[in-house]
Amino acid sequence: MSLYCRNFSNLIAKRCFASSSKIPDLTKDRYPIQRGQYAELSDKDYAQFESILDKNRVLTGSDTQGHNIDWLRSVRGYSNVVLKPKTTEEVSEILKYCNSRKLAVCPQGGNTGLVGGSVPVFDEVVISLNSMNKIEYIDEYSGIVTCQAGAILENLESKVQEKGLCVPLDLGAKGSCHIGGNVSTNAGGLRLIRYGNLHGSVTGVEAVTATGQIMNLMSNFKKDNTGYHLKHLFIGSEGSLGIITRLSIQCPTASKAVNVSFLGLNSYDDVMNTFLMAKKELGEILSSVEMIDEVSLNCSNKVFNGQSPIDVFPFYMLIETSGSNQAHDEEKLNEFLRKAMESSLVIDGVTTNEPGKMRNIWLMRERIADSLINIEGYCFKYDISLPLTHFYEIVPATKERVGDLASFVCGYGHIGDSNLHLNVACKNFNQEIYKAIEPFVFEYTSKLKGSISAEHGIGFHKTKYLKYSKTPEAIAFMKQIKELMDPNGILNPYKVLPL
Amino acid sequence: MSLYCRNFSNLIAKRCFASSSKIPDLTKDRYPIQRGQYAELSDKDYAQFESILDKNRVLTGSDTQGHNIDWLRSVRGYSNVVLKPKTTEEVSEILKYCNSRKLAVCPQGGNTGLVGGSVPVFDEVVISLNSMNKIEYIDEYSGIVTCQAGAILENLESKVQEKGLCVPLDLGAKGSCHIGGNVSTNAGGLRLIRYGNLHGSVTGVEAVTATGQIMNLMSNFKKDNTGYHLKHLFIGSEGSLGIITRLSIQCPTASKAVNVSFLGLNSYDDVMNTFLMAKKELGEILSSVEMIDEVSLNCSNKVFNGQSPIDVFPFYMLIETSGSNQAHDEEKLNEFLRKAMESSLVIDGVTTNEPGKMRNIWLMRERIADSLINIEGYCFKYDISLPLTHFYEIVPATKERVGDLASFVCGYGHIGDSNLHLNVACKNFNQEIYKAIEPFVFEYTSKLKGSISAEHGIGFHKTKYLKYSKTPEAIAFMKQIKELMDPNGILNPYKVLPL
Repeated sequence: MSLYCRNFSNLIAKRCFASSSKIPDLTKDRYPIQRGQYAELSDKDYAQFESILDKNRVLTGSDTQGHNIDWLRSVRGYSNVVLKPKTTEEVSEILKYCNSRKLAVCPQGGNTGLVGGSVPVFDEVVISLNSMNKIEYIDEYSGIVTCQAGAILENLESKVQEKGLCVPLDLGAKGSCHIGGNVSTNAGGLRLIRYGNLHGSVTGVEAVTATGQIMNLMSNFKKDNTGYHLKHLFIGSEGSLGIITRLSIQCPTASKAVNVSFLGLNSYDDVMNTFLMAKKELGEILSSVEMIDEVSLNCSNKVFNGQSPIDVFPFYMLIETSGSNQAHDEEKLNEFLRKAMESSLVIDGVTTNEPGKMRNIWLMRERIADSLINIEGYCFKYDISLPLTHFYEIVPATKERVGDLASFVCGYGHIGDSNLHLNVACKNFNQEIYKAIEPFVFEYTSKLKGSISAEHGIGFHKTKYLKYSKTPEAIAFMKQIKELMDPNGILNPYKVLPL
Repeated sequence: MSLYCRNFSNLIAKRCFASSSKIPDLTKDRYPIQRGQYAELSDKDYAQFESILDKNRVLTGSDTQGHNIDWLRSVRGYSNVVLKPKTTEEVSEILKYCNSRKLAVCPQGGNTGLVGGSVPVFDEVVISLNSMNKIEYIDEYSGIVTCQAGAILENLESKVQEKGLCVPLDLGAKGSCHIGGNVSTNAGGLRLIRYGNLHGSVTGVEAVTATGQIMNLMSNFKKDNTGYHLKHLFIGSEGSLGIITRLSIQCPTASKAVNVSFLGLNSYDDVMNTFLMAKKELGEILSSVEMIDEVSLNCSNKVFNGQSPIDVFPFYMLIETSGSNQAHDEEKLNEFLRKAMESSLVIDGVTTNEPGKMRNIWLMRERIADSLINIEGYCFKYDISLPLTHFYEIVPATKERVGDLASFVCGYGHIGDSNLHLNVACKNFNQEIYKAIEPFVFEYTSKLKGSISAEHGIGFHKTKYLKYSKTPEAIAFMKQIKELMDPNGILNPYKVLPL
């Protein structure tokens, strides 16, 4: 079933990108940021790149444009060179050279990131992993898959499905995003509640450091206690400590049965308690628990002509189960729903295992993000983790704060992972709203000891907010690690760490 | 059900410890190792420790003996001081002082490690986490539990069970081991196949570095992408980069139903294919898959008067399911067994959900390790990860290599996690056997790109073998990290990294 949703959400992604085809301002003009003391590209550098790669894998001029603009069209660099290595050794040669020349570098996967981390800020040399897409080996016994970093998530999923496995990660952008980019950004997604995050699933990483050293930390075992677990430095550091070139990931058994329920609820407290009941009743078959507020669903259905299968409610939940026996899963799900309705937590709902219907339900949920970008003209988007007992309070609090300045404020997200997407929609980017909600949202999150970036990362956009989720000691330690691993600071500069 | 096994295995652990009550040689005498250039304790130092802690939390003289000897009685230090802080701030004060004085330090949890990592090698100051055992908070909605590092695993399990949760980690030593020690050593255990390793489950860590800095990396969220994921440096680095003082861990829903099958098989290939079939048929309810060879089971039953519920076979498997519905799980398990027997993979077997019977089956498995220590007099033990297609070959290969020198060679382990425990039993520690099997076992493992330490870690015993699972570049990088974080090298010296 999930294949339906996944494919469809890629269609949305492409549509949205096409709909906002305006080229954004250059980042250097839009944001108050200074170029670092890096060298500028000379003819000799191009010649050197062409000697490392074939000429046709050194893109210049207009061929670089797509690599300079992020998917959200929120930032634009002006790099004049995109390098497309095919091997780890080529990545190593490139970095060795760039480091010796003090040329800044921007590693790039599928360029689907949402925080401006995957494109150059100024004229950084782009190293695209597009051509490193080999799926090398699938061990059907252990479920371990080894591949190059540029393998597209959807292709990886198709390959492992042939062996009865699934990739423990599912994202809307799976038709474009690279597994290496996913690992570099510790991508989260829709089924983290079931399969955990990538720190648990990724068993090995091969990365090239800023100085060109190939760091082989590959392992095909979840149990491997041989020294420091260094691979985690590369998971989620967004390409600023090294470029991941290969990796191994453990893939669980694919589920034979999938069911989706779409529920209507009267209050956030009911949502929270329904989640608790779902965990207890559905246990091992729970694969997704999403919360959607009324405004979010309206927006999705209005923009994309969707139709809710149930009446209007202040809150909705999408609960997905997946398991190895359809009859068993249905029985559990029905029993859970019976209890939830009997105790008046859930007022109305539909349940289905028909692919078309499940797809339509998932579509309503997955279209929300795109609808919010399109409906009014501009949308301030926040991706935060909050304790469930205070999860939704930030939505009315933000609404009160912005008053009539915004068109509307809404919230939805992966309640199963304590991850809320808070949105403030308005006609245009507006300094008054901006000042009303930032740093308000981050301060609010920080007070609740939440995370100011749950799954999207820090990238370019959030460096100055890192302090709301990390102590000064932790940030200082991050800087020490950066200096140790990238003494010239050439790897993805202006990103992750505060300037 | 699992509670039965767990309690019982603690009894075994205590029995075994008591049975080999001989005090081992001092490590400095048994092994060719030089004391580092650390300061020696003076009266002023004792006074300082007493000023930081109460006098009764500074143990000296005979009170230190239990802290100087490891559980296996394989190593013995001669530290004359054991400090028992109650707070992170006290740990910080102690480390600040020790670092300024260049006093070497040995952090100690429950002292249940199997690689000599948890006791001093020479006269290191022992910092015992015994008195830091508060379970601070259980969030029943998210399942996140926050506690001090010295909380005993079994106590933590009891507490979370009250909320319908379980700790995603289960070890024989759970009655003594600390959750902080588990995290510091990235402990594996019996149910890793179901819940993954601690890099996935632990959401936050607070650690004190060698210089006394408190590094607050606490987080209550699986989705938290705010900068480098530094907590993983403390997970599995065996106390050599910092002392973990608090942590948060996500606990899944406890299972209501447990079933255990004990199966007899004719060959390792049948074991491997039965595992593959179990993964496909049992999917989400599979919670343990163990393999035991004939010699291992005989040994366990001989030493502990156990009785196998089935006939004699070259191989046995213990398969445990746990889920939320007893009838569903039994149906799945029966269907799996029917298929496995129809295809002649499994020749005989029993299945039970009766606590007493499950306990007896688990006991046969869990007693193996202790029986091997007791049966002959000495046992060379290896804890390795190997690809499943070559998993068992090392057992006959080692047997051939040692010939008549050893009493017997056997293998068992967590096949579900590719983790084999290889054992060579003999009358006494014997240089001839030792030379025959080391580095043979590690070279063999290395050729298959296996891990020379799957779940036990490197500790004191395996530092010189690290090179068989890690490249020179990776080891050099580990040393750089160690120098950065512990410039005077005071934290758990002589451990983890090669000297």
